[in-house]
Amino acid sequence: MARYTVTFLPNDKKVEVDNGTTLLQATEQTGIIINSLCGGDGLCGECQLQVTGGKATADKNAISFFSKDEIEHGYVLACRTKVEDNLVVMIPPKSMAEQEKILMEGTTIAYSEAEKLVLHRRSDEPLFSFDPLVKKVYLELPEPTLDDNASDIDRITRELRKVSNYVNYEISLPCLQNLTEKLRTHNWKVTVTFARHNSVGRILQIEGGDTSDKHFGIVVDVGTTTVVAQLVNLKTGKIIGVKGSHNLQARYGEDVISRMIFACVRGSLEPVHKAVITNINNLARALAEENHVNIKDITAIVAAGNTTMSHFLLNMTPCSIRLEPYVPTTTVYPQIFAREVDIDINPEGILEVAPSIASYVGGDIVAGVIACGMADKPEIRCLIDVGTNGEIVIGNNEWLVCCSASAGPAFEGGGARNGMRATKGAIEKIEIRNGEVHFETIGKAKPKGICGSGLIDALYEMVRNNIIEPHGKFNESIKTARLVKEDGELRYIVAFPHETETGHAISISESEIGNLIKSKGAVFAAIKSLVDYVGLSFDQLETIYVAGGFGSSLNIPKAIAIGLIPDIDVKRIQFIGNSSLTGARLLLTSIPAFEDSLKIARRMTNVELSNYAPFMNEFIAALFLPHTDTKLFPSVNYTR
Amino acid sequence: MARYTVTFLPNDKKVEVDNGTTLLQATEQTGIIINSLCGGDGLCGECQLQVTGGKATADKNAISFFSKDEIEHGYVLACRTKVEDNLVVMIPPKSMAEQEKILMEGTTIAYSEAEKLVLHRRSDEPLFSFDPLVKKVYLELPEPTLDDNASDIDRITRELRKVSNYVNYEISLPCLQNLTEKLRTHNWKVTVTFARHNSVGRILQIEGGDTSDKHFGIVVDVGTTTVVAQLVNLKTGKIIGVKGSHNLQARYGEDVISRMIFACVRGSLEPVHKAVITNINNLARALAEENHVNIKDITAIVAAGNTTMSHFLLNMTPCSIRLEPYVPTTTVYPQIFAREVDIDINPEGILEVAPSIASYVGGDIVAGVIACGMADKPEIRCLIDVGTNGEIVIGNNEWLVCCSASAGPAFEGGGARNGMRATKGAIEKIEIRNGEVHFETIGKAKPKGICGSGLIDALYEMVRNNIIEPHGKFNESIKTARLVKEDGELRYIVAFPHETETGHAISISESEIGNLIKSKGAVFAAIKSLVDYVGLSFDQLETIYVAGGFGSSLNIPKAIAIGLIPDIDVKRIQFIGNSSLTGARLLLTSIPAFEDSLKIARRMTNVELSNYAPFMNEFIAALFLPHTDTKLFPSVNYTR
Repeated sequence: MARYTVTFLPNDKKVEVDNGTTLLQATEQTGIIINSLCGGDGLCGECQLQVTGGKATADKNAISFFSKDEIEHGYVLACRTKVEDNLVVMIPPKSMAEQEKILMEGTTIAYSEAEKLVLHRRSDEPLFSFDPLVKKVYLELPEPTLDDNASDIDRITRELRKVSNYVNYEISLPCLQNLTEKLRTHNWKVTVTFARHNSVGRILQIEGGDTSDKHFGIVVDVGTTTVVAQLVNLKTGKIIGVKGSHNLQARYGEDVISRMIFACVRGSLEPVHKAVITNINNLARALAEENHVNIKDITAIVAAGNTTMSHFLLNMTPCSIRLEPYVPTTTVYPQIFAREVDIDINPEGILEVAPSIASYVGGDIVAGVIACGMADKPEIRCLIDVGTNGEIVIGNNEWLVCCSASAGPAFEGGGARNGMRATKGAIEKIEIRNGEVHFETIGKAKPKGICGSGLIDALYEMVRNNIIEPHGKFNESIKTARLVKEDGELRYIVAFPHETETGHAISISESEIGNLIKSKGAVFAAIKSLVDYVGLSFDQLETIYVAGGFGSSLNIPKAIAIGLIPDIDVKRIQFIGNSSLTGARLLLTSIPAFEDSLKIARRMTNVELSNYAPFMNEFIAALFLPHTDTKLFPSVNYTR
Repeated sequence: MARYTVTFLPNDKKVEVDNGTTLLQATEQTGIIINSLCGGDGLCGECQLQVTGGKATADKNAISFFSKDEIEHGYVLACRTKVEDNLVVMIPPKSMAEQEKILMEGTTIAYSEAEKLVLHRRSDEPLFSFDPLVKKVYLELPEPTLDDNASDIDRITRELRKVSNYVNYEISLPCLQNLTEKLRTHNWKVTVTFARHNSVGRILQIEGGDTSDKHFGIVVDVGTTTVVAQLVNLKTGKIIGVKGSHNLQARYGEDVISRMIFACVRGSLEPVHKAVITNINNLARALAEENHVNIKDITAIVAAGNTTMSHFLLNMTPCSIRLEPYVPTTTVYPQIFAREVDIDINPEGILEVAPSIASYVGGDIVAGVIACGMADKPEIRCLIDVGTNGEIVIGNNEWLVCCSASAGPAFEGGGARNGMRATKGAIEKIEIRNGEVHFETIGKAKPKGICGSGLIDALYEMVRNNIIEPHGKFNESIKTARLVKEDGELRYIVAFPHETETGHAISISESEIGNLIKSKGAVFAAIKSLVDYVGLSFDQLETIYVAGGFGSSLNIPKAIAIGLIPDIDVKRIQFIGNSSLTGARLLLTSIPAFEDSLKIARRMTNVELSNYAPFMNEFIAALFLPHTDTKLFPSVNYTR
């Protein structure tokens, strides 16, 4: 078969491929990651490349994405273009996946304070006991004699029993196989690394000498949109680094459902699995390098994610999650060696995945419950996690109920032309005074787009300033240069071209406002349904915790005013940021927290909203700012 | 580097090797197994081959093993001959390892009745509860609904809990990864294979449909000299096949110590490990083929062996076992997947190794204690296992002590020109009347050699007939054609050339008699030392169990008369054959027995005879037939 060389610019990466390989496949072979949301179907138009050398045939699909001029200049869709000649191909900046941009430009995601939190569960509680899942202990063993000739491993475990809570230990064969020599070479001075495995101490590694200072773990929040990791010192419990990247699975579908379809209907689970593993390996490597940590000294990873993400992570088919009656393969994930899924840390290092409740209430929520401590005390509290799905938990130390509703990616910056995640350059605060828009961006950078908290502000400010009506339509009678029509749709300009990083205006369209209202409506309807289901009223919730990747902060009064969060005293509402990550870190650093998570997963009751008749009515009633039933929001009063 | 082709006759196997490869290495590359006891040092002379084509240089060592005529006809030692030309090489029958002969000739080892025993522990006890380590259960699961949408694995484990004793289950990632599809493809009808792992049920395999009839296990006695395996139906508990072969490790040294030196001093653990794995794989494959069992339906192996054999089996260095203070790597072996040591059964099948007590009291002895049931009742009983090592256990349901002494391979047919294992053609019974020798062979075949029980008979009969003196020297005054001198040493002919399979006489020399006396002396001294150590007398032992590979039976009165076994009422002495194999089968087929074995391993006290001063005096006193202290053997009266 003929083979051709493709040279990708601007980085001059070369790859030799078989005749007929698509350009998208060729980029993957070089390790270049370009945008692709539809999974290579020629539908999303994200994978645009420009062929500058060699002969390539423009494909039919190109017509709908490119101008005549662009087609003449060699623009093609990578997924629809086959290599049948030696080619030189330019990757335009907009086609390069943001993952790449972040790494190339050296920018990092700005984290909310909650993500930087140390070991507190709540600010008003004492430190959770520091008792990491994996421990390292330095032992100086007595040398054997004829009167004390216990086996080598017994000599170790009897010392371990003095310094740990485990009575029984298990050990892998490779660890045993070189033990005898190791003990004698190092004069009976060794460092033992062992993990909690069920109720047994699992010996992972025995090193010569004292290496107990070199002891690290990683926690990962595997979000549908973003994967965020922290590097934690397991000797001190301190966070020593944090890093995030877009979930590379996005090329196989922007939301959970389309990725499930890609994996299940097409039978292509493997690439979706590999994508998130690449995310984690990249983050782990970058965190280790930046903090001068040897990756082999990382012996534990705890990941939290929704049930589908957890299945993808472990290469388990999520196909029955998608279809009624919504059955996952498992909700409690086995402790495995990280190498079993090709995660590159210490070869004997373990991976734990936070347990899920049901198909649509995952380990990220269990981690969130651990992070806010709501399962510890008799007061009834509520956790609201707003992501692509909105998940709600209500309960206390005796009972816990939960539900989830599909909210769409609007609050994570998805489904809007200028939406973006809460990274540098995102507009996170907006105020409109006298027709002037005042905004603040993350990192004080020139704006690139608007993140979730900015969109909440925008929605509130536009209603307050009479720019949109409470049902989300523009008030066409207002006179402002900010209201423009594009492609037959009205858009409100938040930042003019000269104000922005890109030189293009940042604006919000009517249909995008509609998406935001549907998102907030779904979340609120889920909260209302669950409160009704357990026979409570909002006033009976002692505290509401709001979690999610909105940005570094969330304006609670404005979130109430748009009808996203119940209208209770703002002092009883607390924004806790990425509680999935905080919770995952508690699982890693505290065995009691880890064991709590298993108990919580067992005792939490999932209410299937798809099976709960009142939910749809609640949803329709919530498609208004703040709500069709104004009695639910007594404090909200838009001053016009 | 030049490469040459070596053609091995008579089987016409060809192999291409690098210049300078030895012929012994070349045989290994083809899979041909030839005799080699010294590990390739040119010392044992076992690896004789005849070069019939091509040019090979005779080596210096050849001079001591071959006649001039043989050297001229191309006879060489395989280990000392390098391939520097294309060669044709004939393997003489005597150089082909017996392993190969057994397989080629279709003969099998004849087993003692004890090895064929079904599930009894002792003849006077009820069946041990049948509760195999690995179980297969067929489940018809209810289909999930919105009201019952537990995860797939929870659906399985809640059914398993109804039919098994485990509350908690663990499952490997590969087993989970295809579970969802499997359940739906097979309409929720599956067969689950699960093993006891610590106190948890470990799910090994989930198959579609009902496969619960296809459920097998293998037990292996890994002896220093012989490896014996049984194939067991785990649905019924029945033994469906038994097969044995010589331990292929013999090429690296005949006894445990020389193999340890090979592995440790030369750093060549791997080939010694691989050898016994080859043994087990060959036996498993042959047992499966002969009994029309698919090897993938074998999901468990239980092995019992001495501590060094167990270490070799698991590729663990036995190097500290050999040297004071005799410390093994471990005495309790982890449950592993058989594939981890390249044992070819079901890829998810497990390997359990019976726990050891100390460096020189192994899992074979723990299995023996289980087999004879001596740890169950208050009566004090004794187990004597005579092999290359003699191991003694004394105790009851409250205490157990043990010791071991190096006995040499004499009773297993080692260290004597015509000694052999208890296989077809071995002389197992001897009586000498009026100068005539009457013998019986295993399988009623023409004799090939003498096995352990035959040697005990021979020793007794020769003393009784005044052929040897009680200190083991020939009485040169007797007149018989059977007493001949060869190479300056007297030999007593048991079978004349015309009577034998090989056409060569079968005889015993004075030095071989000396070895037998040393062997029986070491065993008896160990028994006597241990009885004294616990402050008992022989009369206080309710039963003595004698185990070992002597043959299909053991003449107890004669064994007493030579001073091997204490002189108590013969009704209280029971020969139980290969109790290691019987015990291993109990571990496989009965979880209570398996758990007993762990308890026994914990509570048995090892007495180091090397650290126990009186032992050496006892040994010297026992170098007499029956003993220097005739009061110890009041019933023995050689009628001369």
